[in-house]
Amino acid sequence: MFKVRTIDETIELIGEKFSNMYLEVFQVESVNSYGFILAKDIYATENVPHFNRSTVDGYAVSHSVTQLASSSIPVVLKNLGEVLMGEESKFQVSDEETVYVPTGGHLPSGADSVVMVENTELLKDEVIVNNPTSKWENVLLKGSDISTDDLVLKKGTMINERHIGVLTALGVKEVTVYKKIKCLVISTGDEIVRPHEAPKVGEIRDINTYTVSKYLENIGLIVTDTLVIKDDFLKYKKAILDGFNSNDIVITSGGSSVGTKDYTIKVMNEINAELLVHGINIKPGKPTIIARYNNKLFFGLPGQPTSAYVVLNTFINDMVSYIYGMKKRDLPYYEGELKMNVHSARGRRTYQLVEYNNGKVIPLFTKSGMMLALSKANGYIVISEFSEGLVAGTNVKVYRFGD
Amino acid sequence: MFKVRTIDETIELIGEKFSNMYLEVFQVESVNSYGFILAKDIYATENVPHFNRSTVDGYAVSHSVTQLASSSIPVVLKNLGEVLMGEESKFQVSDEETVYVPTGGHLPSGADSVVMVENTELLKDEVIVNNPTSKWENVLLKGSDISTDDLVLKKGTMINERHIGVLTALGVKEVTVYKKIKCLVISTGDEIVRPHEAPKVGEIRDINTYTVSKYLENIGLIVTDTLVIKDDFLKYKKAILDGFNSNDIVITSGGSSVGTKDYTIKVMNEINAELLVHGINIKPGKPTIIARYNNKLFFGLPGQPTSAYVVLNTFINDMVSYIYGMKKRDLPYYEGELKMNVHSARGRRTYQLVEYNNGKVIPLFTKSGMMLALSKANGYIVISEFSEGLVAGTNVKVYRFGD
Repeated sequence: MFKVRTIDETIELIGEKFSNMYLEVFQVESVNSYGFILAKDIYATENVPHFNRSTVDGYAVSHSVTQLASSSIPVVLKNLGEVLMGEESKFQVSDEETVYVPTGGHLPSGADSVVMVENTELLKDEVIVNNPTSKWENVLLKGSDISTDDLVLKKGTMINERHIGVLTALGVKEVTVYKKIKCLVISTGDEIVRPHEAPKVGEIRDINTYTVSKYLENIGLIVTDTLVIKDDFLKYKKAILDGFNSNDIVITSGGSSVGTKDYTIKVMNEINAELLVHGINIKPGKPTIIARYNNKLFFGLPGQPTSAYVVLNTFINDMVSYIYGMKKRDLPYYEGELKMNVHSARGRRTYQLVEYNNGKVIPLFTKSGMMLALSKANGYIVISEFSEGLVAGTNVKVYRFGD
Repeated sequence: MFKVRTIDETIELIGEKFSNMYLEVFQVESVNSYGFILAKDIYATENVPHFNRSTVDGYAVSHSVTQLASSSIPVVLKNLGEVLMGEESKFQVSDEETVYVPTGGHLPSGADSVVMVENTELLKDEVIVNNPTSKWENVLLKGSDISTDDLVLKKGTMINERHIGVLTALGVKEVTVYKKIKCLVISTGDEIVRPHEAPKVGEIRDINTYTVSKYLENIGLIVTDTLVIKDDFLKYKKAILDGFNSNDIVITSGGSSVGTKDYTIKVMNEINAELLVHGINIKPGKPTIIARYNNKLFFGLPGQPTSAYVVLNTFINDMVSYIYGMKKRDLPYYEGELKMNVHSARGRRTYQLVEYNNGKVIPLFTKSGMMLALSKANGYIVISEFSEGLVAGTNVKVYRFGD
């Protein structure tokens, strides 16, 4: 018999077995790289800014001449003119001279600081400076944000819009990223029909391929296909093998019948997959299977939609992080007051669906097979395997799915 | 002079002015409705489940005959056979009879509960029942999850994969949703060049159209186009007017020069837009403009990339929620220990970029115009306008961008 694993053991094992999964890399334009994971560190090949910039609207000066400036004894400088936005300054500023520079404008040669316009007065060709400046005051020096050869983004970074901002600032046209993880999603069970069909008595419409595949797409994976397969061993085995030909992950959700559960184990044995996990101490979702085949991942979810969804949510982000070599992420949460008692099973970590609303946390209890609660839930709470439940009034952390 | 508004006043005003923005609706297939916002309530037109289902593998019985069953005095019933998964039961179960039903199988007529298989023994044609059952025990009654005419999803719901699950379970083929909000994103400034160009001294590459448009796409809006416009009043005005012809929102980020700032106000005046906000007590991001034109939204961001990004993040989700008629959402957070002092300006609410890592919160200080901190930041903390800062060691809440 296979030992039922704890959630923590399962995650550790996933890390051990899938951290070296081979993923192809390719070049993508930086501006189209959103959501991809960097396969190489990015170093700056330019300085940002690439010229000394003023950070205020004001007058460029040599700071030393303003040292004693005050409103009672101001310093008077000759006004040479104005640096235009977007243009290189042609001015050479001596100690007796100044030039107007707009915010973001090029600091003229000879100047080493900018007096804010509020601290000056313009009199014909002269500028009255009422305040001292210090060296490089109100100046963003060339390379002070990013210098050539700085490490800017690390391998394993999932590229977001802020990263695209820095890549465009640096003029990095293309980046090397991993191809996105490809998944095949299969629902099995003699009772399952496609949603456009009218189910007869005894049949139900397929739900899992939709909840699972949209979840996967939402966290940035590619779902190449979704299949519904009746309880037919050879077809099921062929679908899994075919799936591994063109995908990195095959995810099935088992029909609830005993037959289907056995089929999955039998397929894993026949194709010589390495069975890693067969049963997890999680509620709902105990009958979960994880295996490795040709360095690819098989993830067998329970058939019941809530169980399948909770198990997917609990493990897939860690799976993806390990595969891509990303840093493990903490989960953000809301805090709120639990409004009803929740019973849980000692020995199994319980994921309780809840509706969080403005600090109130309403547990949504589901009988096996119920859908509405899953649709109402906007989060879940986690109850320790060492507890028998939580009483109403407890302050709890509510996590969101997909985070 | 226009009064500088607080953040809370600004959000209230947005709610007042944009809650009735007209948005076209259309029909979309339920399985392709991910991320759309429901424009009509959804009522169930079927029962879920649509037949009485067993929730366990076991024997269907009339509960009354099992009332006195125990392992010492079991009840013996005649085994009529097996209900197959996905098939309608043809059995009629009398008080002396039973039928095997798999999890999810159809409860046969005459039975009103299911004894778990673990609490029975099969002896040839007879089943020994060792435990009593109560009425409807281990049965999911027809319509008990969802009944015909139940309100299932409310108008204003952003459809996620769990909602698609319930829609497919119900056989709802299409739903009525709002067309997605369309945005035009404009960067202005004589110093701005497109990222594929090599900036001369005095010029910088455009960043804002990328950070802003990818952010908008990430929260589910459509960016129809991005433009870079030099400081040319007529071109700027024309771009905004053209933008309103085919978009619901026009978002500009101003060049940092005084000229550009004046241009925006001047355009709003010339096109008879209703200027709502001109200056917000937020740091960074004070020079922000919000206006209404033909019941559409103009959002003028500051030019500095961090300021533009912080202002966008602070207001856009509320704008979108009001426009679509969605419920306002709380923000999830991490908690961690601030590792350095942060100074803030009393009278302005401060959004401080931070790097959150495993309970540690490192503030990322930026001079005006710096990019690297924005790229390193994975969140921000909010410092009250009634405070002058936070000291190292304070426990703080870290929010994520885009939540």
